[in-house]
Amino acid sequence: MRQRVLVPWEHNLTNLPEGVEGSLYSGTGEPTVDLDDVGFYVVPYGRTQRTDLMERMPNLRAVQLLTAGYEHALPRLPEGVTLCNGRGLHDASTAEHALSLILAAQRDLPHWAGHQAERRWEPHYTRSLADSRVLILGYGSIGAALDERLRPNECGITRVARTARPEEGVHGIGELHQLLPESDIVVVLTPHTSDTTGLLGARELALLPDGALVVNVSRGPVLDTTALLNEKGRLRAALDVTDPEPLPSDHPLWEAPGVFVTPHVAGGSDTFYPRARAFVDTQLRRWANNEPLANVVAG
Amino acid sequence: MRQRVLVPWEHNLTNLPEGVEGSLYSGTGEPTVDLDDVGFYVVPYGRTQRTDLMERMPNLRAVQLLTAGYEHALPRLPEGVTLCNGRGLHDASTAEHALSLILAAQRDLPHWAGHQAERRWEPHYTRSLADSRVLILGYGSIGAALDERLRPNECGITRVARTARPEEGVHGIGELHQLLPESDIVVVLTPHTSDTTGLLGARELALLPDGALVVNVSRGPVLDTTALLNEKGRLRAALDVTDPEPLPSDHPLWEAPGVFVTPHVAGGSDTFYPRARAFVDTQLRRWANNEPLANVVAG
Ligand SMILES: NC(=O)c1ccc[n+]([C@@H]2O[C@H](COP(=O)([O-])OP(=O)(O)OC[C@H]3O[C@@H](n4cnc5c(N)ncnc54)[C@H](OP(=O)(O)O)[C@@H]3O)[C@@H](O)[C@H]2O)c1
Ligand SMILES: NC(=O)c1ccc[n+]([C@@H]2O[C@H](COP(=O)([O-])OP(=O)(O)OC[C@H]3O[C@@H](n4cnc5c(N)ncnc54)[C@H](OP(=O)(O)O)[C@@H]3O)[C@@H](O)[C@H]2O)c1
Repeated sequence: MRQRVLVPWEHNLTNLPEGVEGSLYSGTGEPTVDLDDVGFYVVPYGRTQRTDLMERMPNLRAVQLLTAGYEHALPRLPEGVTLCNGRGLHDASTAEHALSLILAAQRDLPHWAGHQAERRWEPHYTRSLADSRVLILGYGSIGAALDERLRPNECGITRVARTARPEEGVHGIGELHQLLPESDIVVVLTPHTSDTTGLLGARELALLPDGALVVNVSRGPVLDTTALLNEKGRLRAALDVTDPEPLPSDHPLWEAPGVFVTPHVAGGSDTFYPRARAFVDTQLRRWANNEPLANVVAG
Repeated sequence: MRQRVLVPWEHNLTNLPEGVEGSLYSGTGEPTVDLDDVGFYVVPYGRTQRTDLMERMPNLRAVQLLTAGYEHALPRLPEGVTLCNGRGLHDASTAEHALSLILAAQRDLPHWAGHQAERRWEPHYTRSLADSRVLILGYGSIGAALDERLRPNECGITRVARTARPEEGVHGIGELHQLLPESDIVVVLTPHTSDTTGLLGARELALLPDGALVVNVSRGPVLDTTALLNEKGRLRAALDVTDPEPLPSDHPLWEAPGVFVTPHVAGGSDTFYPRARAFVDTQLRRWANNEPLANVVAG
């Protein structure tokens, strides 16, 4: 039986490798195409991940997710089907948002936005990123992309991962407590695991100098929210992720002094789409040529 | 007669070259030190530039400004006195603010700040800097500093100056009309001269694609405000400088759709001070050694 590929974008249909047949399913509504002969399923990107459709594809052999996380797909993954994730597709967008949050906080942009709403023109001197010392806590794929973007900004950069990699100038997590007092800005970029829950807690925050900025673009629970609130404005924060999430309207973080919140949008920008479309094209070419797929995480 | 230097910061006093005597005048209130034997005067940085004091310094030989602009000092400059400006001291701060405005506009930060004030968590997809095409209009000292900061951001960069410099990839202003339709973001960085008043006017704005972003960090009149307002939200703008300035509270720019305003703060950030102090130290060393001063603009 011939196997079809099910792709989320017209773009991919018009770029199919020679000899491969495809159909479109964009993720809105129920699929109208026949699922019986689908061999390769690209799960459409969006808040609702239609991984349930895998169970209706008896000839499925590979599934491509467009998210880095893949835990949600595992329970439904049929025996013997290869699962690939979207690792890397969000790096540019997420690192860019981290840089945006750093600059916004240093240059008081939320303050100016508030003044604009009140039609007030009242300049003052601000902090800068230049001459600040930035600590990247979690020096992986996105951390490295942030590092590149920070480098021309005349700031210091300190890199921390689980294990030290001295040849890359990366410190191990064991040195964190020595490094915090020398940091003006800490950017959290570890995944959320049992090891990283509360990684920045009361003790760590207390080690930061007055006025230091904590940026979180990874997952809310890596930063201890209560400990941050207990600093009562001694530290500043720019948070794309919070604990809990979504942040309830009566949560004290919304109005905590020196805290800027964006609603988990670091990975979600236009830059994702061209990268994701091109990646799907490449995976389909590998599939058509019987080459190993990239980003295999299970199966 | 021995000549003293008059400096604005304690730092400079504690770093005086061997054999040089100095006094402090920080710019607040009237100077309490004797002005008669001042040979080198560093005009304190601030909104009020005390260039009038030059007239009370009969032994003055050199004046150091900490601003790039120096027109305000010329009318009072005594015959035979050398005038130096602060060119370059604001580059890092101004280029950094330009980058901040670009990122803030692309990633909807003013929008998220407004939602935070209303305690709303409503994520949506945003534009990005990555994959956007940025045109730097005025590729001088600050333009080059912005270019460096843009380069790791996976965006296109087009450079325009008065005269083309093909070896540096810089287009001449004559090509502007061809380049605008291919630009998603235009950053204005020319000085304000009779040639540049209204350089971005109705005709130029009309050439930009829908949703394009105009960033102005140079001087308000280089962008035609009325022409921008007449675009009625077809274009977006992030403006650190406006025409008029300060922006009166009843001006329509404050609430124009897609316009973000900061009150002329690009050059004014912490990063200026260490650079300015170190530059004054260096100038004083040149002075003490009878070497030519840097940044001479008159006298
Ligand atoms: N806000 C958003 O929209 C958004 C978008 C995309 C991703 N994210 C988040 O960003 C996180 C990072 O993504 P990534 O692609 O950069 O991941 P990655 O490449 O796996 O890098 C993770 C880094 O964290 C380090 N790390 C892990 N556990 C640690 C610990 N206990 N202590 C210190 N460092 C630790 C790792 O150290 P080693 O190198 O030593 O292993 C690695 O350097 C993701 O897990 C996700 O939660 C958020
Ligand atoms: N917002 C703030 O707080 C702030 C702070 C500092 C400075 N500024 C502003 O930024 C401006 C730029 O500073 P800078 O130090 O980068 O100046 P610069 O080094 O003199 O560079 C100016 C650039 O503008 C170009 N230019 C001049 N006239 C032009 C014209 N008619 N058409 C096209 N391009 C033209 C020049 O072209 P050529 O190279 O061909 O001569 C040059 O590339 C300053 O004049 C100041 O107004 C603002």
